[in-house]
Amino acid sequence: MPEGRVGRFLDACRCQPVDTTPVWFMRQAGRSLPEYRALRGDGDILAAIANPELAAELTLQPVRRYGVDAAILFSDIVVPLVAIGVGIEIVAGRGPVIGEPFRTEADLERLRPLDAGSDAPYVAETVRILTKELAVPLIGFAGMPFTLASYLVEGGPSRSFARVKGLMHAEPTLFRALLDALASITVEFVRAQVDAGADAVQLFDSWAGALSRHDYEHFVMPASQSVLAALSGSGVPRVHFGVGTGELLDLMAGPEVEVVGVDWRVPLPRAAERIGPGKALQGNLDPAICLAPWEVVRGEVERVLDEAAGLDGHVFNLGHGVLPETDPAILERVVEAVHEKGAR
Amino acid sequence: MPEGRVGRFLDACRCQPVDTTPVWFMRQAGRSLPEYRALRGDGDILAAIANPELAAELTLQPVRRYGVDAAILFSDIVVPLVAIGVGIEIVAGRGPVIGEPFRTEADLERLRPLDAGSDAPYVAETVRILTKELAVPLIGFAGMPFTLASYLVEGGPSRSFARVKGLMHAEPTLFRALLDALASITVEFVRAQVDAGADAVQLFDSWAGALSRHDYEHFVMPASQSVLAALSGSGVPRVHFGVGTGELLDLMAGPEVEVVGVDWRVPLPRAAERIGPGKALQGNLDPAICLAPWEVVRGEVERVLDEAAGLDGHVFNLGHGVLPETDPAILERVVEAVHEKGAR
Repeated sequence: MPEGRVGRFLDACRCQPVDTTPVWFMRQAGRSLPEYRALRGDGDILAAIANPELAAELTLQPVRRYGVDAAILFSDIVVPLVAIGVGIEIVAGRGPVIGEPFRTEADLERLRPLDAGSDAPYVAETVRILTKELAVPLIGFAGMPFTLASYLVEGGPSRSFARVKGLMHAEPTLFRALLDALASITVEFVRAQVDAGADAVQLFDSWAGALSRHDYEHFVMPASQSVLAALSGSGVPRVHFGVGTGELLDLMAGPEVEVVGVDWRVPLPRAAERIGPGKALQGNLDPAICLAPWEVVRGEVERVLDEAAGLDGHVFNLGHGVLPETDPAILERVVEAVHEKGAR
Repeated sequence: MPEGRVGRFLDACRCQPVDTTPVWFMRQAGRSLPEYRALRGDGDILAAIANPELAAELTLQPVRRYGVDAAILFSDIVVPLVAIGVGIEIVAGRGPVIGEPFRTEADLERLRPLDAGSDAPYVAETVRILTKELAVPLIGFAGMPFTLASYLVEGGPSRSFARVKGLMHAEPTLFRALLDALASITVEFVRAQVDAGADAVQLFDSWAGALSRHDYEHFVMPASQSVLAALSGSGVPRVHFGVGTGELLDLMAGPEVEVVGVDWRVPLPRAAERIGPGKALQGNLDPAICLAPWEVVRGEVERVLDEAAGLDGHVFNLGHGVLPETDPAILERVVEAVHEKGAR
């Protein structure tokens, strides 16, 4: 693999020395970019994902514009579910909406195993195009079982997660079977991306932070760990990320994880203390900071880098996805500032 | 004050010995109760709050039904804003919606000082009715400045808090002036409740958990502390509560606070470690647990009580408000179980 592609992102993930701090942004390919809006228009996002040339171009746009140190595949965590025939629509400004939510054991039958090659051939095809085009590593990704289950059971985005937690507590056996089925789908989906050439993977345990530590540990962690363990032979760094997961960081940072994503609520030195040595951390600027004037943003970028100074490895990122109203010029300057200030 | 009214809730707030663990529920007066739905119907909630006889009855309903150890005034955090003429509608299933959101310095003029006696006389009147009727302490409450500012600036409930954070960073002077104006309103609103007979107060810093520790400490904590300090002469225990505030607990537990509310994400012993000795903790069962079968709920109630065993003071509560779909029979049994298991 050419030297430029391996570079600082993968080294930081492995707690190896780097020339400067690598940086990329969750949801860097998205509505904040005018070239994204021009290319996507009002078209269906799932149709764009299923079009390899288009998905590759959307993946490349932020790499060109921002000079980030990694690309992330343009996709969505519900893609493997759509690929096996679950009726899902992604509603603009709301998120994924499930036609028939999952509530009973009979619904398990709708979760047949994924065969990425035949069910979603466009994913590997997009990755293959990108590995030829990209000068930086490509991050593949998938949703972790609880996050996928949240959408399936709630029927869409939720604030209270009452239904999925209700299922977890009232029918733990069914809940575990649901998570196991989703874990298999996630593993197959991620493996297809790695086999096609993805250099790293990020696993989105996005809504795990809605759970108490006890519930995460007992009901959810086993399925997340099984996904991570199944990918241990893949040889690529595994990033494990969720929002509001301050109390779960040690549980999310098991032996099968190279990088732990940290949201902006937890100062990085605190996160490192909870996680212990030998792991890289990814984060953790509040995405809302990027709506402020540049002088403010710069100060906060420097604060995050100062806090990261003692870490074994650090990948700069936001604590969650880029907000659609973000000015791309600010993100360009964030990348410059990280590279300048982070230089060893 | 008669012995029964003082009782275990106030003692626990002050880390005094109690016969058993006191319990009440945030949003105990609400849609989960059939008698509430029968009495409220589809009427405007702000109209119900402005009707002292009705508001008192809605406050009493859960005390009768559940046998909780404290009542909480039936009200809403936007009431003082409505009382000074800010146009706010509470939309069912969504929350408060502001007719003209606050965005510029000119909007500050719309935040004139509150005179609770003339602007919202129904609040003290409701409290006076309740002090005659109640055999348990009455908790008054108000929203903390940042939470009120969030609604005013966002225009309604928000997921990202992008606008209010944007104002905070882009125009810190205006933001501080906004928080100061709201702090004065909150203090006046709480004082009116205490003067009329409320026995304790809860300050809802509900959305503080959306902030990084740095931003809370620098931009928000001063206004919250000024509210708490202004109430120090009132002689009533002050409960300081927010959601997702695990990283802020020490900052929220200053010298002017007797009780810190803890959501379900932080195990109570961890919260106590962060807060230090001499404070009571309130919490912290996940409200979604109450949708599970009784055997599950009982196990989780016992777990919370076990975790609370070493605390200096403990008030049992949920980690956030009662979910509307909760079966009241479950909450009745929670109260029984807390009193039984918590007995010294």
